[in-house]
Amino acid sequence: MNALPDGRVLTDPDVIDSYARDRTFLEPGKPLGAVLATSRDDVVTTMKWASEHQVPVVPRGGGTGLAGASVAGDGAIILSLAKMTAIRELSPADEIAVVEPGVITADLDRAAREHGLMYAPDPSSYQISTIGGNLATNAGGLRCVKYGVTRDSALGLEVVLADGRVLNTGRRTMKGVTGYDLTGLFVGSEGTLGVITAATVRLRRAPAGPPATFAAEFGSLRDAGAAVSAIMAAGCQPSLMELLDRATLEAINDLRNFGLEAGTTAMLIGQSDASDGQAVAERMERICMENGASFVAVSSSPQETEELIGLRRMAYDAKERLGACLVEDVCVPRSVLPDMITAIEAAAARHGVRICTVAHAGDGNLHPVFIFDRGSAEPPAEVWAAADDIFTHALELGGTLTGEHGVGLLKQRWLAMEAGPVAAEVQRGIKAVFDPLGILNPGKAI
Amino acid sequence: MNALPDGRVLTDPDVIDSYARDRTFLEPGKPLGAVLATSRDDVVTTMKWASEHQVPVVPRGGGTGLAGASVAGDGAIILSLAKMTAIRELSPADEIAVVEPGVITADLDRAAREHGLMYAPDPSSYQISTIGGNLATNAGGLRCVKYGVTRDSALGLEVVLADGRVLNTGRRTMKGVTGYDLTGLFVGSEGTLGVITAATVRLRRAPAGPPATFAAEFGSLRDAGAAVSAIMAAGCQPSLMELLDRATLEAINDLRNFGLEAGTTAMLIGQSDASDGQAVAERMERICMENGASFVAVSSSPQETEELIGLRRMAYDAKERLGACLVEDVCVPRSVLPDMITAIEAAAARHGVRICTVAHAGDGNLHPVFIFDRGSAEPPAEVWAAADDIFTHALELGGTLTGEHGVGLLKQRWLAMEAGPVAAEVQRGIKAVFDPLGILNPGKAI
Repeated sequence: MNALPDGRVLTDPDVIDSYARDRTFLEPGKPLGAVLATSRDDVVTTMKWASEHQVPVVPRGGGTGLAGASVAGDGAIILSLAKMTAIRELSPADEIAVVEPGVITADLDRAAREHGLMYAPDPSSYQISTIGGNLATNAGGLRCVKYGVTRDSALGLEVVLADGRVLNTGRRTMKGVTGYDLTGLFVGSEGTLGVITAATVRLRRAPAGPPATFAAEFGSLRDAGAAVSAIMAAGCQPSLMELLDRATLEAINDLRNFGLEAGTTAMLIGQSDASDGQAVAERMERICMENGASFVAVSSSPQETEELIGLRRMAYDAKERLGACLVEDVCVPRSVLPDMITAIEAAAARHGVRICTVAHAGDGNLHPVFIFDRGSAEPPAEVWAAADDIFTHALELGGTLTGEHGVGLLKQRWLAMEAGPVAAEVQRGIKAVFDPLGILNPGKAI
Repeated sequence: MNALPDGRVLTDPDVIDSYARDRTFLEPGKPLGAVLATSRDDVVTTMKWASEHQVPVVPRGGGTGLAGASVAGDGAIILSLAKMTAIRELSPADEIAVVEPGVITADLDRAAREHGLMYAPDPSSYQISTIGGNLATNAGGLRCVKYGVTRDSALGLEVVLADGRVLNTGRRTMKGVTGYDLTGLFVGSEGTLGVITAATVRLRRAPAGPPATFAAEFGSLRDAGAAVSAIMAAGCQPSLMELLDRATLEAINDLRNFGLEAGTTAMLIGQSDASDGQAVAERMERICMENGASFVAVSSSPQETEELIGLRRMAYDAKERLGACLVEDVCVPRSVLPDMITAIEAAAARHGVRICTVAHAGDGNLHPVFIFDRGSAEPPAEVWAAADDIFTHALELGGTLTGEHGVGLLKQRWLAMEAGPVAAEVQRGIKAVFDPLGILNPGKAI
């Protein structure tokens, strides 16, 4: 690693430790060191050295992952891309930007908005997570019910391969089918196929005004789920459609008292950013009433809207105050959302586990958060048993283990249930094409 | 091939010949036979036999390809999926369908519309092309300026691999990040990685009413290009935005006289299917006037609209009357659309070649069609020279060789210019994972 300038390589174990973790409870091993790359050349140097010495490399961005993909093990080199923060180009005419992986997601969005554009993907962590991390996990977010996930905004990539070669994938154009879709292959591959050092991303026209927002309270989760189905079926095209269960609402209410009513079992928050958004929000309000909402209100001011969305964005922090968290991420076909919610409640009761659920309801993507004693190094057996029930049920309903957080380390134990042996073999084959020595983030994703 | 029932295997050379071609001028070789598969099991049987005997297999759908991807060579087995036409499932609640590869694209769209939904991708050939072929080429179309290409509607696939194993990729859910994106890898791979035997595709809410449509005539192609940029930058989100040059308009006018004016150099046809579509169409009309249109009209009736769109859909047939056609498919960043149009005109003049261009202008995707003497087996040297100029210029402008037709055989000679050696090597590596014997559509796509 002598080829890297001073200050780019950290070896103090106490310092390294903070680079070895993500937002899960998982304990890292003892990595060799951490490289703070500032350029593509630093990444090339690191990968050549790692290949030569057959040392595992764990790439990372903001460290906000919820599945352990950037938790570093013994003897690994941590490769942080967080200092590669240049927005190399932003073209309003072509509605694209070329960015380095360390750019904070919200920063790109802000830069785009100066030109009347936006960067659509907005994982809940978007104020602290990086584009590189978003690409590595194919992050979703609140707006993706209308605008799609990170994959849908990724046009092309610059990638450093395991042996230090530089690969350019994709394009700057809206469409393109030259060769296999390598861009799509890297998105969501959790740093196991290469290290992304730049991305060409699609921007979109930002809506002209602020979105119209409604909130609805329900006495029954099933009613809330039915309202979501009805709203989507009515073609309302919400730009946000979030569901919070009672346990989540209580946790938020404890953190910031918003006057949670005794009979409220679920809250639905929805937005429309269409040009006729106010009318759409009122239509969604009516559909909620028709589906048994106990209270519905369309927000009358941007402040009120911000407060509502603020409550939702507070959900994870509120839960972290309750104890250690295992955050899950099942996604099911939208029509069975109520069934999945019922199954989560049943699993919580059956195993005596505390679970708070929020859902990107318009996508059928649920985040059951298992709360357990902060003293435990690992979730206790009953948490795993409840998670097991939930995953099994999600797959039976035609769902998937992970809608947007990725497999990382946490979902390895259930991976075979979903993917099957042929897919597993094919994926190992692909991995070997890009990383024959198996040094890129070993043990993650597949 | 004895395992296949009677009637599924054709060996008469005259009959086979019609299965060995696509819509290009390319002459096929002498294939061994054609299998008309009616089920996944037929495909499995065929692939096992082909693997055992190391015989190349050329999968095909409707045979409407424009790049030679389904043109069969000497000694190959043609594997037609055209008889696998079942819509296995259509779920209005989840807005998905599970379809076999031989389903005609327009048939799926029609089936969806019975439930207030639509299947968005609509290549110009959608009345005769198949979902399988659309997936194999990642087909675009007229509506993809708003709704994305085939990839954006593909959620999961059932694929028979070269050795007959069955692989299931993807999901039924709106989001999902379990493992690598194998679905995306197969889409656009032109039958070189596996044979798609079913697809789970996303449907979308159909607009409530017919789209509002405008047509604008320009005396200058550059003005028309500038109008497109201005319309997109104004956030109009057209659901269709097509540009036809003078040569194309003349060819269409010859076929069906629509009163083409002497001074008209380009026509722009645009639609909005938004709920306030009429207002948007009028806004687009104004923008055209501001950008020098000589005549603009918003359509006043569905009949008038149908006639206008009919003119556009007639473009390819009109050109085929002029001679043999080489259809190209460059895509450039939208802002340089006028430059690309100018470059095409210059190449036509420089090499004395007749080129008619239509463009999915909102995407920067241009189809210059080179007309040459039907007597020639191959386009003459000046056509290739002009094509060469156009591709070189497209790449210089940050564009790509193919926006939606694929590489097939026709674009092999330029592939290295765009992809570069690292990408080429990686793609060969991926191909080898899926098809180690190299029997799946050899010589195509990569």
